[in-house]
Amino acid sequence: MTLTVPGIDPDARLAEPDEGFAAEELRLASRNHAMPMEAVRWDVTPPGLYYLLVHYDIPLVDETSWRLSVRGCVQRQLALSLADLARLPQRTVRVTLECAGNGRAQLSPRPVSQPWLNGAVGTADWTGVSLRDLLADASPQTTATDVLFTGCDHGLERGVEQDYARALSVADSLDADVLIALAMNGQPLPPQHGFPARLIVPGWYGMTQVKWLRDITVLDHAYEGFQNAVSYRLRQDPTEPGEPVTRIEPRAVLAPPGFPDFMSRVRVARPGPVRLQGRAWSGWAPVDRVELSVDDGATWMDTELGPELGRWAWRGFAIAWDATPGRHVLRVRAHDLSGRLQPDVPPWNRGGFANNADQPVEVFVLGLEDTALPGASGE
Amino acid sequence: MTLTVPGIDPDARLAEPDEGFAAEELRLASRNHAMPMEAVRWDVTPPGLYYLLVHYDIPLVDETSWRLSVRGCVQRQLALSLADLARLPQRTVRVTLECAGNGRAQLSPRPVSQPWLNGAVGTADWTGVSLRDLLADASPQTTATDVLFTGCDHGLERGVEQDYARALSVADSLDADVLIALAMNGQPLPPQHGFPARLIVPGWYGMTQVKWLRDITVLDHAYEGFQNAVSYRLRQDPTEPGEPVTRIEPRAVLAPPGFPDFMSRVRVARPGPVRLQGRAWSGWAPVDRVELSVDDGATWMDTELGPELGRWAWRGFAIAWDATPGRHVLRVRAHDLSGRLQPDVPPWNRGGFANNADQPVEVFVLGLEDTALPGASGE
Repeated sequence: MTLTVPGIDPDARLAEPDEGFAAEELRLASRNHAMPMEAVRWDVTPPGLYYLLVHYDIPLVDETSWRLSVRGCVQRQLALSLADLARLPQRTVRVTLECAGNGRAQLSPRPVSQPWLNGAVGTADWTGVSLRDLLADASPQTTATDVLFTGCDHGLERGVEQDYARALSVADSLDADVLIALAMNGQPLPPQHGFPARLIVPGWYGMTQVKWLRDITVLDHAYEGFQNAVSYRLRQDPTEPGEPVTRIEPRAVLAPPGFPDFMSRVRVARPGPVRLQGRAWSGWAPVDRVELSVDDGATWMDTELGPELGRWAWRGFAIAWDATPGRHVLRVRAHDLSGRLQPDVPPWNRGGFANNADQPVEVFVLGLEDTALPGASGE
Repeated sequence: MTLTVPGIDPDARLAEPDEGFAAEELRLASRNHAMPMEAVRWDVTPPGLYYLLVHYDIPLVDETSWRLSVRGCVQRQLALSLADLARLPQRTVRVTLECAGNGRAQLSPRPVSQPWLNGAVGTADWTGVSLRDLLADASPQTTATDVLFTGCDHGLERGVEQDYARALSVADSLDADVLIALAMNGQPLPPQHGFPARLIVPGWYGMTQVKWLRDITVLDHAYEGFQNAVSYRLRQDPTEPGEPVTRIEPRAVLAPPGFPDFMSRVRVARPGPVRLQGRAWSGWAPVDRVELSVDDGATWMDTELGPELGRWAWRGFAIAWDATPGRHVLRVRAHDLSGRLQPDVPPWNRGGFANNADQPVEVFVLGLEDTALPGASGE
């Protein structure tokens, strides 16, 4: 349903050059949140530090009356309670998810929307039922092409009233690791992460991972709803159809060394050996190389990769750095086995999606005169 | 220790008139996060939705080597492990905490810092040891006046390198509900909320609630460290000493009715009866009255208060509203038993602290022609 509401702009806009962040961007940044970068130290992101993006409101779902329907072009319709789903075979997959808009606030001109820097990421162990088992039960007709997933979350977006809904092709739906997840890190899903059930499609950006899932409809044609056909397209101009946003582009991030200045977040460190560490991931293929630059991208060196944590999880990397007094700009960049490499020039599109350009981490290393560590604060 | 680092401004600044939010404000807003307003529906805020403010980095604390020291002007020094603390009598208190900077981004001119709107709040059940039991064990000397609490979190703030540290008077430390908390909602503290132990001082703003606590030092004089004497003061001019920020001013917030537009967060609702609900709290005295205005503050009516959830927890309120087509601006305001009432004009100070002015909630109620609810999204 299309609604016209005074004061709500139906069009996405670009910020003017030198325009500060707008009140509407702050409202989104205040509700949603990134993972603080120091949290890359954990293989699995602690609850509450995992990035969060909610399009509308977090819905309140009554688990006793909630059912997941499976219908459309199927031989057998299903309506499953939470207990029904919990009785089916469960599978656990460790998955790194990232918002498609991660990096948007670094673009110029800047698309006005959720203003992510580069922390819209997190890793969790998701447990649930393989979607392909559910679909096998429902038995899709031979004409089936798409599978549409609809959540309980309701809102307005560019004038279109909707429950959040996204479709995947049948082919993409049948990977054994695509889950109807009931648990995050061994606990029932938190309300903000989709209680009681959500879709998990490893390797794809966050818009695919429909939360508060209530309906799965098998279609015999391509889905043309808002979140597939209007939003989440890579476009240079708003009039083009554009290409769909799909899998996660490679990215590496650094656990920022030293300690921060509260206001500017500039990093300060003492001179001497520092072990730099971070995480890298890609939804296209495993990460096979992460490079570090300590001179703002002029030269690069290979880091040492940590153990694999699973096909769909980020991977650690580390390298020794001898921090010398003065200002340094560190950068890291990931390569994956598909041949993809993080670019240094941000890939621009009107939605601000998939900007995986490597990012500077500014570190000011103190001189020898500042090397005395302050004692216990006593006073 | 005072450090001078190029590119880090040692002074707090005010935004220019019409200055958009700065990159430094966005960096803070992206790490820290407010409670989404719809989360007032829960008596106890679900983990991850509770507001978060971290001055520096979240420290990684090794619980096996961690000790809490109690020292200074005491007869007996203590050094307690987590197991030692867990063996002492435990007390659970339900507490609503709020950041002292909540409301800062609504001020004009706007102090440039963490740009909170009005969601920097949350309610949890905190369990731990009464500070007064610990102090009784350590037996303060008769000269004791202040108690200084120091965390493991380390950073720079306006040029001052420090572990986060705040002091309370001995008198304020001896309330039985002041806790060294080891658990939040029955679970060990999450890393971002102070694992393994933190201070909880019910009724006081968040800066008092020292996280990652490692040391308690009893002093025989007033503490003049950064977080008491420089920051968290109410000043009109940066040169005045100012008054200290202490207890939480009364505030009421509304669970926003209807559903939101993604980008603007403007609320849209259908006409007809709506039950408006929200929460109110004060650190000075129990909330005894919450009023609602549906005409942007021109007239006010009393709401119905819900059950008390404990002296230090927020309280629910509700009222029926007949939503008629058109634009409405709702406001709520709380009174407490100390006679305090939320103001309509924001109380301005240079730090942007304790701005509890009531806030508008804009709701656009649809006309009868738009009353058909869209069906299951199918397509």
